[in-house]
Amino acid sequence: MSTLSPNVRKTGTTLADGRDLFYFDDSEPYLSGSQTRRLDDPRPLTDRYAPVPDETGVNQPMTGPTMRYDVLTGEWIPHAAHRMNRTFLPPADANPLAPAKPGAAYSDGEIPAEDYDVVVFENRFPSLMRVPGVEDVETAFEGEDMWRIRPAAGRCEVICFSPDHTKSLREVTPRRMRTIIEAWADRTEELSQLSGIEQVFCFENRGQEIGVTLHHPHGQIYAYPYLTPRTTQMLQQARAHRAATGRNLLRDVLEAELRSGRRIVLEGEHWVAYVPMAARWPLEIHVAPRRDVADLAELNEAERDELATFYLQILNMMERFFPAQPDGTLTKTPYIAGWHQAPTGEGREDLRLHLQIFSFLRSPGKLKYLAGSESGMGAWISDTTPEKIADRLKDIAPEAVAAVAASTDNNEVTA
Amino acid sequence: MSTLSPNVRKTGTTLADGRDLFYFDDSEPYLSGSQTRRLDDPRPLTDRYAPVPDETGVNQPMTGPTMRYDVLTGEWIPHAAHRMNRTFLPPADANPLAPAKPGAAYSDGEIPAEDYDVVVFENRFPSLMRVPGVEDVETAFEGEDMWRIRPAAGRCEVICFSPDHTKSLREVTPRRMRTIIEAWADRTEELSQLSGIEQVFCFENRGQEIGVTLHHPHGQIYAYPYLTPRTTQMLQQARAHRAATGRNLLRDVLEAELRSGRRIVLEGEHWVAYVPMAARWPLEIHVAPRRDVADLAELNEAERDELATFYLQILNMMERFFPAQPDGTLTKTPYIAGWHQAPTGEGREDLRLHLQIFSFLRSPGKLKYLAGSESGMGAWISDTTPEKIADRLKDIAPEAVAAVAASTDNNEVTA
Repeated sequence: MSTLSPNVRKTGTTLADGRDLFYFDDSEPYLSGSQTRRLDDPRPLTDRYAPVPDETGVNQPMTGPTMRYDVLTGEWIPHAAHRMNRTFLPPADANPLAPAKPGAAYSDGEIPAEDYDVVVFENRFPSLMRVPGVEDVETAFEGEDMWRIRPAAGRCEVICFSPDHTKSLREVTPRRMRTIIEAWADRTEELSQLSGIEQVFCFENRGQEIGVTLHHPHGQIYAYPYLTPRTTQMLQQARAHRAATGRNLLRDVLEAELRSGRRIVLEGEHWVAYVPMAARWPLEIHVAPRRDVADLAELNEAERDELATFYLQILNMMERFFPAQPDGTLTKTPYIAGWHQAPTGEGREDLRLHLQIFSFLRSPGKLKYLAGSESGMGAWISDTTPEKIADRLKDIAPEAVAAVAASTDNNEVTA
Repeated sequence: MSTLSPNVRKTGTTLADGRDLFYFDDSEPYLSGSQTRRLDDPRPLTDRYAPVPDETGVNQPMTGPTMRYDVLTGEWIPHAAHRMNRTFLPPADANPLAPAKPGAAYSDGEIPAEDYDVVVFENRFPSLMRVPGVEDVETAFEGEDMWRIRPAAGRCEVICFSPDHTKSLREVTPRRMRTIIEAWADRTEELSQLSGIEQVFCFENRGQEIGVTLHHPHGQIYAYPYLTPRTTQMLQQARAHRAATGRNLLRDVLEAELRSGRRIVLEGEHWVAYVPMAARWPLEIHVAPRRDVADLAELNEAERDELATFYLQILNMMERFFPAQPDGTLTKTPYIAGWHQAPTGEGREDLRLHLQIFSFLRSPGKLKYLAGSESGMGAWISDTTPEKIADRLKDIAPEAVAAVAASTDNNEVTA
């Protein structure tokens, strides 16, 4: 499916360097999408595919990022060294995701509109990029058959969740969250159709503890031209499970979690949230639909509607997991939230949509570091148990649900 | 091999809670190992296998850490929740790795001796531990066949590189480094023979940026009761390579690096250091012996001798990779250094010893964070290229070599 909901209007435009930008507006008069309020992007940006000077100053054709096959692990590693040629870095105090100032001739940020609801645009310094004319073929590196190199011909997009830079995603209204889901589904569907794209990953990095320097609420969407290591692993496990049982692994995981109930932390009509049986992070929740669905684009209206509220409830649980400060201020839990979606091609029937949301935080001010065992060997060590995590989440779930209900009420009053 | 070098004497003792401790002394009168200078450990520690009170205060048999099989990824995840029952945490300003104060009746730290050269002991709060009487079998969890759980029946040891807490490992003399190599080799050999141990990992986490709070120079040795994800991947790749070519993957990687020469940063008679062709970290070096060797215990005397100097040269290159401060002080490069060793059992002939040393630092004060793509998808993105890393390392190699030579001269004078 993924026809846009009638409540959302999508309007595309092109930025000065040739990148795509899409507005997703959910309120009359669909402001950022309306021609009268939309601005052109008159920044003096060089076309993104323009030749770039080499070390000696001579212009060379832009070839884009490449990736190399790590023969020790079987993984592709994009080396986005071209990102270092960043010429127009915004000043440190600038917010490139803010709307243009009212009355200004144009925005000095990325979004040429005085206001917006949700907006998606191609990343200006992407790790993955297809450059027209660059053939997407694998070649031997340094003449060694064993060493392979390829263009990192994917696509990186940024999604702004709100025009208000002071907000966190958990503070948007369910109505706005519904629009974000619509945008995720739309991008998943469109990016899946691009040549060479094997999977689409919608995710949010939240918190300066994980390196986020731009506090404006935003996420990212990566369209990978290869199957990522985690997806490869899951696919391998799912195929072995299907061979042994004839069943879908992720469906069986959900059913086993439901049978046990011990780690279920939130349930809706269409969605279930649980701490996975072998959680590796100090705080980790998986969210899965009850119906077998490959990706966000396949969700129906009822599932999307419920998810808008459910997702905000989960984010509010994350924010309440650690004790509040003495004055009642919630701990800003740093987290990574990522949607695992089935590949666009082979293996699609073996995987199943689910959200993985997790935090590096062990307690306020104390991070789990990925040191020798994790970073050197990939061998995780957890200092807690999934059941302890689930117990705490169950305790705070009612408060999180109430917080979202209050936000809905406010929204209805002011709408 | 791994008979101890005649210049090193090993002396074992037992700490108050039953843990093993081994002194590796390299100088007359082999002080920490001599009966007259060694102290008993009279701390009032509870036996480490003693029953522990449950939530209601009733003592229960100590069962040790368990690990669960993550059916989504095929990885074992130890959940060391018992570590939270830490009863005797040292005060924040204490250094449990310091030798006892001269004349004191006993140490208030872990090492009951007034001085030592190199010492290894079992970690007091291990993530992996075999508890006598606990059978090492896999069982179904919550009655689900798909969900498996097992004792995390491995072993975690700590190695102190120097009695001087102000030193970094790169500042020890080659002679002391030689003793450390001897200790690593000895522990690798002994731990490999323990029942159920599948691989031994000697590593060092260096720097508070990766969560190290104890600045005393030390490393860790993990004996895993399973093959780690990275080793599993390498084994899979090595087997595919052997099937396709009849050759050893890691040997072919070394030979291809030598043929290219582009990323070789240091060469000795027995050892080669290079930036791997598909390096994923902002700074990453692999060090491999020229001879096919499965693990540290298989190194011969000549290889160990050269490695002592070679290893220190590599650490000195790490410390000079980023620009020094204006007053000439070197940047304390945070790093993880880990020895990839062949498994103790199946697959041993397909892998080959190599050191992987890498840093999260992109530039002074700026870390690479493992955010959504890396932590959620396992999909690495590098912002540099292996060749750029190698160029910088080649530039600073002579200075690093000179620094170690100066340290050797000083050592010879004072010895």
